[in-house]
Amino acid sequence: MKSERSSCGIARTLEILGDKWSLLIVRDLMRFGTRTFGELAELSEGISTHTLTERLKRLGEFGLIRRKPYQSHPVRYEYSLTKRGKALRPVILSMLEWAGGNLPRRRKKRSA
Amino acid sequence: MKSERSSCGIARTLEILGDKWSLLIVRDLMRFGTRTFGELAELSEGISTHTLTERLKRLGEFGLIRRKPYQSHPVRYEYSLTKRGKALRPVILSMLEWAGGNLPRRRKKRSA
Repeated sequence: MKSERSSCGIARTLEILGDKWSLLIVRDLMRFGTRTFGELAELSEGISTHTLTERLKRLGEFGLIRRKPYQSHPVRYEYSLTKRGKALRPVILSMLEWAGGNLPRRRKKRSA
Repeated sequence: MKSERSSCGIARTLEILGDKWSLLIVRDLMRFGTRTFGELAELSEGISTHTLTERLKRLGEFGLIRRKPYQSHPVRYEYSLTKRGKALRPVILSMLEWAGGNLPRRRKKRSA
């Protein structure tokens, strides 16, 4: 059972994307195409620069995003989705669809 | 911009499901219909009973799962998806599809 589970596509997906921020970054890059670190930091509501740095590194390691220098002194990068990252569109869309049909539009706080 | 972001469906979905375990629990209930706590603890690879308790409570609070007693001395519950939880099927399927096409079947360790 263990070995079946560890090869499960959901488990493997969540190893990479199972956190509060990674899919928000993917979402922003999907929406805007290319974003600088500063733009992502501003867009991803409340993400700390430390967390953003870590998530971008991780998404890069897994081949979901690429970075390209757009300035050399000092060097600055802009980020975009790879083909593998762009392939997450159905995941993003299915979450949007689910939220639209199943979550209240504004939730003040978690109900007990 | 802030207020636009906080009403985003992806962000609202990830507030509930943005962790390593919640969608694995949903996946198991989707696959098996009804599961006891012990069955879920065994199925969700490596999840601690503490984390499982917390996630089940949280998923219940958000109306994604329901519990029903199946034994009274001591009381024991079994869990299943609500309509709202079942509506996550497209999210689960899109992740499976993405993993199938984009992730190696077995990953020994994260590449640097």
